[in-house]
Amino acid sequence: MTVAARIFPTGIPPLRREALEAPDSGIVEVFEHGFGRAGLIPLWAGEGDLPTPRFITDVAARSLAAGETFYTLQRGIPELREAISAYMSRIYGKTLGPERFFVTIGGMQAIQIAMRIACGNEDEVIVPTPAWPNFLGALTVSGAKPVLLPMQLERGRWHLDLDRIASAITPRTRVIVVNSPANPTGWTATGSELEAILELAQRHDLWIVADEIYGRFVYGGEARAPSFHDFAGGEERVLYAQTFSKNWAMTGWRVGWLEAPAALGATVENLVQYSTSGVATFVQRAAVTALEEGEPFIAEQIERARRGREIVLESARRTNRIELAPPEGGFYAFFRVAGVADVRHAALDLVDEANVGVAPGTAFGPGGEGYFRLCYARKSEDIEEAMRRIEHWLSTRSG
Amino acid sequence: MTVAARIFPTGIPPLRREALEAPDSGIVEVFEHGFGRAGLIPLWAGEGDLPTPRFITDVAARSLAAGETFYTLQRGIPELREAISAYMSRIYGKTLGPERFFVTIGGMQAIQIAMRIACGNEDEVIVPTPAWPNFLGALTVSGAKPVLLPMQLERGRWHLDLDRIASAITPRTRVIVVNSPANPTGWTATGSELEAILELAQRHDLWIVADEIYGRFVYGGEARAPSFHDFAGGEERVLYAQTFSKNWAMTGWRVGWLEAPAALGATVENLVQYSTSGVATFVQRAAVTALEEGEPFIAEQIERARRGREIVLESARRTNRIELAPPEGGFYAFFRVAGVADVRHAALDLVDEANVGVAPGTAFGPGGEGYFRLCYARKSEDIEEAMRRIEHWLSTRSG
Repeated sequence: MTVAARIFPTGIPPLRREALEAPDSGIVEVFEHGFGRAGLIPLWAGEGDLPTPRFITDVAARSLAAGETFYTLQRGIPELREAISAYMSRIYGKTLGPERFFVTIGGMQAIQIAMRIACGNEDEVIVPTPAWPNFLGALTVSGAKPVLLPMQLERGRWHLDLDRIASAITPRTRVIVVNSPANPTGWTATGSELEAILELAQRHDLWIVADEIYGRFVYGGEARAPSFHDFAGGEERVLYAQTFSKNWAMTGWRVGWLEAPAALGATVENLVQYSTSGVATFVQRAAVTALEEGEPFIAEQIERARRGREIVLESARRTNRIELAPPEGGFYAFFRVAGVADVRHAALDLVDEANVGVAPGTAFGPGGEGYFRLCYARKSEDIEEAMRRIEHWLSTRSG
Repeated sequence: MTVAARIFPTGIPPLRREALEAPDSGIVEVFEHGFGRAGLIPLWAGEGDLPTPRFITDVAARSLAAGETFYTLQRGIPELREAISAYMSRIYGKTLGPERFFVTIGGMQAIQIAMRIACGNEDEVIVPTPAWPNFLGALTVSGAKPVLLPMQLERGRWHLDLDRIASAITPRTRVIVVNSPANPTGWTATGSELEAILELAQRHDLWIVADEIYGRFVYGGEARAPSFHDFAGGEERVLYAQTFSKNWAMTGWRVGWLEAPAALGATVENLVQYSTSGVATFVQRAAVTALEEGEPFIAEQIERARRGREIVLESARRTNRIELAPPEGGFYAFFRVAGVADVRHAALDLVDEANVGVAPGTAFGPGGEGYFRLCYARKSEDIEEAMRRIEHWLSTRSG
């Protein structure tokens, strides 16, 4: 008898459909295949090579030593909500009060709570793809059904067809997910695209779950990407997930925030209470310092990504076999390679044969077939070496 | 127009029922009423007065300084899963392998994932009450319906009527929640009670969600409370929530673990991935040290609780107005007071008039009416002073 049969002898479905259907992450397979290999250059995940800077970690250490180890407030400590408010108001050029911000276990919990608020059993959620697989994971666990809309690569730019979104709306639609700048494609919505999506959502009484976490990683000379904040007054049904992971190199800390209409405060508080019961105070103290003193570090991070992006684009021009739309934002190259179709196996081969870790595009849903995702937010030497290895690997494969 | 009306102009239910129905915690009301008052003795929450000891916090600080700030494994780092396995095998006198243990954001996320695995839309979950309100919160957010079964106080002992549980089982029942030693009553199941519950659950193909987090806080001379581990072979449908909060004074860290049949590993991993994406490595390093070097501190914590318990029982004997069943386990006194019926208002009065914070029994569901919960895991001087203040306050109220 199998273990599963011993646990579940009667055959009654023992696991909830929502739990069972939570998809495996296609990024994890290659990560686990290559994890720990000597000399491997890991470009598979959405994080850079820099640990969190000491001016941030030291604050957490001091808070721990001072005994800030007790239960804390479910919405976040007031100092952090104020610091987020000041940061966001500065970046978006408008007053966004602290009552809009709720501290979460990373951007992931912000998305999970947003989905829990906005959709559930059999509701439909529109997700343009290729997309970060965790959107699908979170909405599936919520009981909702993803409606995946592949974007098109047209004349060197990823393109979101608003008419296709409008056509996909049914009476069961509850949410449109908008990730701009996008992981993995680098697509960055224009202001008028965001305005049109917001208008469409309002007309149909839909929620928007907005992931604008790469908003400061843009490459056209502007200070930040366009945002729903440029068009929304604050009381629309827009739920924003944000994170400390990318700007401040704090991926492993698991701290971020949900931005929501202040009227939802009590609901968000309860959803935090009954899932994770808050974020450690010593982590929140470090996050305050990140917001207040982190601008020089963010500038360095963005410059690092800009150089990495140039190296990848230059490699693509040189080889003539790597094809990608120059990413408008974010820090991923999403590319395809002439003659390489089975990217899942190719990503495993790249680990074995080139000692480079990239994610297969198939992990990102329809539209990702044939693509690889590579994170270029890393020191130039690594990106240069990784591209040399990939180019050499390509030269050994028939094109 | 109200803010809510502006956000939700069409009147379509904008929030999921599961999100809206997440109950407010009755403990939070009194906490927020009294938070920050000078000289107040806070006995309302399930935490003591000691911060996390330095031998634990120092490990986190060193890990941070060493740059352990990157994404981590969704099931927990191997070192922590091994350390939990060694600890649990030692305490329960049997081999419990690391593949059974999944690191979570506190015991709360362990419960949330357990509910997500075991129950959902319209399923029924049996919860003996008075109960920690977060069980109800987690299962309600999961879409399930609580079936609350009040326990009886009989001849000075709280009593769980197994026949009433059996009668409450319907075709929609999926889970029985068993919290022993219990928060708030101190009820501690005997081995034969646990064996009978397990047998009942197996007969009806139900899951048990077991909260045994207070298992080492017992007062009859034994080393620990009886556990489902004494009767279950490891592959039954028992999901155990555990936490570092109580034994190691780490409430604010938000780290715990789910223990589940190893066959559920991939499901648990996905549910972690799509809700919180893991626990910070530097937190996990500290947790390893807690498990490996924490026994003298736990002994001190238990002794502290034992003295606090004696002080409360002595006060009850002395006043003749405070009635409670001596708690068999845990670290709460759940008591009623002759002449005080409206405990919600009385708890607020106790803050205002006696500068003592206790939780109203109404926060714990049916059977909690007329009761107060007081946490006695604190230094003796505080418990003595708190009981003096409560006694004096009682003497000013008509009995």
